[in-house]
Amino acid sequence: MEIGFIGLGKMGMNMVTRLRQDNHQIVVFDRSPEAIKQAEGTGAIGASSLQDLVSKLAKPCAVWVMVPSGAPTEETIQSLAGILQPDDVIIDGGNTKFHDDVRRAGELKPKQIHYIDAGTSGGIWGLQIGYCLMVGGDKAVVNRLDPIFTTLAPKDGWLHVGAHGAGHYVKMVHNGIEYSMMQGYAEGFELMSKSDYKLDLGNIADLWMHGSVVRSWLLELAAGALKEDPKLTGLKGYVQDSGEGRWMLMDALDKDVPVPTLSTALFTRFRSRQEESFAEKMLAALRNAFGGHSVKR
Amino acid sequence: MEIGFIGLGKMGMNMVTRLRQDNHQIVVFDRSPEAIKQAEGTGAIGASSLQDLVSKLAKPCAVWVMVPSGAPTEETIQSLAGILQPDDVIIDGGNTKFHDDVRRAGELKPKQIHYIDAGTSGGIWGLQIGYCLMVGGDKAVVNRLDPIFTTLAPKDGWLHVGAHGAGHYVKMVHNGIEYSMMQGYAEGFELMSKSDYKLDLGNIADLWMHGSVVRSWLLELAAGALKEDPKLTGLKGYVQDSGEGRWMLMDALDKDVPVPTLSTALFTRFRSRQEESFAEKMLAALRNAFGGHSVKR
Amino acid sequence: MEIGFIGLGKMGMNMVTRLRQDNHQIVVFDRSPEAIKQAEGTGAIGASSLQDLVSKLAKPCAVWVMVPSGAPTEETIQSLAGILQPDDVIIDGGNTKFHDDVRRAGELKPKQIHYIDAGTSGGIWGLQIGYCLMVGGDKAVVNRLDPIFTTLAPKDGWLHVGAHGAGHYVKMVHNGIEYSMMQGYAEGFELMSKSDYKLDLGNIADLWMHGSVVRSWLLELAAGALKEDPKLTGLKGYVQDSGEGRWMLMDALDKDVPVPTLSTALFTRFRSRQEESFAEKMLAALRNAFGGHSVKR
Amino acid sequence: MEIGFIGLGKMGMNMVTRLRQDNHQIVVFDRSPEAIKQAEGTGAIGASSLQDLVSKLAKPCAVWVMVPSGAPTEETIQSLAGILQPDDVIIDGGNTKFHDDVRRAGELKPKQIHYIDAGTSGGIWGLQIGYCLMVGGDKAVVNRLDPIFTTLAPKDGWLHVGAHGAGHYVKMVHNGIEYSMMQGYAEGFELMSKSDYKLDLGNIADLWMHGSVVRSWLLELAAGALKEDPKLTGLKGYVQDSGEGRWMLMDALDKDVPVPTLSTALFTRFRSRQEESFAEKMLAALRNAFGGHSVKR
Repeated sequence: MEIGFIGLGKMGMNMVTRLRQDNHQIVVFDRSPEAIKQAEGTGAIGASSLQDLVSKLAKPCAVWVMVPSGAPTEETIQSLAGILQPDDVIIDGGNTKFHDDVRRAGELKPKQIHYIDAGTSGGIWGLQIGYCLMVGGDKAVVNRLDPIFTTLAPKDGWLHVGAHGAGHYVKMVHNGIEYSMMQGYAEGFELMSKSDYKLDLGNIADLWMHGSVVRSWLLELAAGALKEDPKLTGLKGYVQDSGEGRWMLMDALDKDVPVPTLSTALFTRFRSRQEESFAEKMLAALRNAFGGHSVKR
Repeated sequence: MEIGFIGLGKMGMNMVTRLRQDNHQIVVFDRSPEAIKQAEGTGAIGASSLQDLVSKLAKPCAVWVMVPSGAPTEETIQSLAGILQPDDVIIDGGNTKFHDDVRRAGELKPKQIHYIDAGTSGGIWGLQIGYCLMVGGDKAVVNRLDPIFTTLAPKDGWLHVGAHGAGHYVKMVHNGIEYSMMQGYAEGFELMSKSDYKLDLGNIADLWMHGSVVRSWLLELAAGALKEDPKLTGLKGYVQDSGEGRWMLMDALDKDVPVPTLSTALFTRFRSRQEESFAEKMLAALRNAFGGHSVKR
Repeated sequence: MEIGFIGLGKMGMNMVTRLRQDNHQIVVFDRSPEAIKQAEGTGAIGASSLQDLVSKLAKPCAVWVMVPSGAPTEETIQSLAGILQPDDVIIDGGNTKFHDDVRRAGELKPKQIHYIDAGTSGGIWGLQIGYCLMVGGDKAVVNRLDPIFTTLAPKDGWLHVGAHGAGHYVKMVHNGIEYSMMQGYAEGFELMSKSDYKLDLGNIADLWMHGSVVRSWLLELAAGALKEDPKLTGLKGYVQDSGEGRWMLMDALDKDVPVPTLSTALFTRFRSRQEESFAEKMLAALRNAFGGHSVKR
Repeated sequence: MEIGFIGLGKMGMNMVTRLRQDNHQIVVFDRSPEAIKQAEGTGAIGASSLQDLVSKLAKPCAVWVMVPSGAPTEETIQSLAGILQPDDVIIDGGNTKFHDDVRRAGELKPKQIHYIDAGTSGGIWGLQIGYCLMVGGDKAVVNRLDPIFTTLAPKDGWLHVGAHGAGHYVKMVHNGIEYSMMQGYAEGFELMSKSDYKLDLGNIADLWMHGSVVRSWLLELAAGALKEDPKLTGLKGYVQDSGEGRWMLMDALDKDVPVPTLSTALFTRFRSRQEESFAEKMLAALRNAFGGHSVKR
């Protein structure tokens, strides 16, 4: 089918490529003319503005927004809201807080513009494998987009999970689980890296992929990374987080649900980004104060 | 090849069955005559005692011990030590603390009896899929057992990971990671179970198996369990632990390695087994003492 | 000096009593006529409405709001905003989120009504010992209230800690620390309660009050509670939280600060209020799925 | 009364001084002749060896061992076991694992030498304030030492808590609680250090000492440290641990008791001593692997 696509970053470009490989008609826009040119190489039709993009689509149209979360997504959707017509659809494929989906769907409703939130997982591997899509919004509108979702996802890899925001909600929880899993592996591999057994971590990760209880896609990636650089000497342990973990933690506070491994995983990331920890200095200061324990100055 | 096999519980019986399917010659012993009879149904040869089992194997022989960890394993190995001859091999396939492997290998060395520790993962699915085997001990002895390991494991599913104890060490870390992963999923699914979106947890688990970052074998099992009983109403949240998690935590203390998600996962299991928590009563008592907050009596 | 006082609950009544003991002139209002009558017994002057209360105070007046946090406080302050005159002062002594203080101070500014936030610690013991007061707002206005703060607090027990909201911010962190300390004690006493040494927990708590590193007021309260009911058999381990812990956790997320003991303490409280834990059922379900481990049904 | 005292380090010297201030007769030994000379300045009698020390004490005698925990304490007690006579007493005042107390008491029993374990809290402030003493062993022997304990401790500051090892057991739990409390304060002060309110942390710590729920001796020390160096710029956040926290965690594993804040506090210390964290590198590697997220190299 035909769809507009805004945002040709790492994720967006791959998604357009995958859609083009399945012969969908894609009209693309990005702030970067080079990115548009690159997308045109896949057979997509470039647009010079949001207005231009919408004008090139048959009515009612659908526009997939794949720009950085937060302000860029918000502004793009606000702009589209002023251009689109009743029965058109906006799909937000980025990492949006589900509360914003609910709000936006409400704001667009009086204009009869449909809103769909599509939590998208798969990272840079999605081009090849397909993207797991968690879709929220009205069922009829979701169904209309079936060909697009079916192309983007691997077999059985997309699902209408619920009303507006449900897609990003499920994606948020997905990412929180991802944090805990990563932290679990990280602890295990750190411990093994300290063992006197001189364990070959890459081979062990690989081994576990064959029949063990902990086999997973993340473990497969771990095997690859550890084989390439067994002591990870080439990396700094500086770990970003893209927001979903915090949102999940806040949602857990809203619902009185204990999420101790999620919080632990998140705090490990915070700590990884601190050059020095005031809390740890405070501990040293206290030990010194009551015990005269020597401290490093 | 030919091997003796002691212990025909859930795991042991399946392993014998898998070995028999590949036409290995197996002599089996178990405390339960019924279990022996069942194993004979697969073509294994029953023995009436450890002595009898050893006498039915050509020299030098190999005996796989697959009895409950702790005292039963220790006693079986002590008994075998009195029966076996130089160049024979004992394989401990259970959940033994790696320190015990090191000790046993040392005790058996003067008798020239070889000792191999084989950490075994795969649970009840191993019969069909194969068992992931993490093997510790002398390389030459490990090589001698190659046909057995190759049959028991799926393709690329066994590895000689290091010296005596290394197999169980790697298995211990494997299980600790398993705890963290399970806890991560459990937190995520609990949160979703409380959502107003009325999410279909089984379908979501299933969805995530297709292209998402958190896909794993545990998630596949989660999907199965949640489809069968979406609210898990049929279960009590009483969670056992078989020891490896504690050992990993103790090893982390030995090596000054932070393992906060492991400890969190372990403590969740401890808490799950408490009818009531003294600590939580203490918190209630303190709140009452300073704030006059009402408490439940 | 003269002050209006709204809210004669457990905390409010004690504060009015303490102010009256120091001969301040207090005009009081509460939804409950009985509470007003009781306060009149301390020499306070009862009012029949907010309007009446304000009319009984000389200009410019000060009104201390001590009603439940959230909607009741918000509504009371909104009502006062419509009654008070320029240069009057509202003091919020409850447990308000500091963002609300900042907002309210901004809303009241055009009306030239002053706003002071006073974080108040001390619980039911404040009547006798005095309340620790953490005060936020304009310095000049804070100074005007010096006689009130000085009476309510013990010696050196009040401080102007910063601009609007700072008082409740510091109180929020205070309460978060309180959670961690309580949890630390609770874990220690639970462990001792399980010891074969048959330890006398009340006596040990008492002992530690004399020269040990862990002596504190909370420990003193613990000693009292444990002497009264050594096994805490009379209590249910059902632990409420009044919000500050969550707010502190959210603030830590805003600032990328790891607060792992706070989150742990908070989640323990969440868990204490669950009849059964979906997460723990999920763990049991997974163990059953991969290992055929028996589960309780 | 008369007592022998071995070990004149920071703690030991202060204890001898305090005992001398109360006119006890003390015979002292230390590896360092200078330390012995210093102790003689308080009126203690120096000894040239353990043998010499014992020979200078009337029978039956008591000897307090206050040397570093682990091997030094063990060796000293083994040596004393060869020198002392039936009915003599050894008191271990150091940080010994309670299992070692139980073992030692058993080893000394055939020789009729008594063994007392005295967990000692108070740090460098004990000289002035007195030491909180948690005493384990036989009641009759403990009673014999009453004058010594009474001098060392502040009023009501020592207690016979149970059988052999109970003193060190209670001290172990005491120290574990200390870790959690310190961590709780450290998190709170770190958060406040990041606040836009530019809070004066030393003054706030001081304020909280007057009537707040979180007042404690540790907080008093915190106030002192933060007033001296408000941003703790002079310190490195490198935090040692002396063993009791680990032992408490291991004991909690033995008893299936959740101790999540203790473990968190302990792991924070481990992390504080890592130049870089393998686990955090692993997280960065995984994020890079699935998301192409930029990593620091």
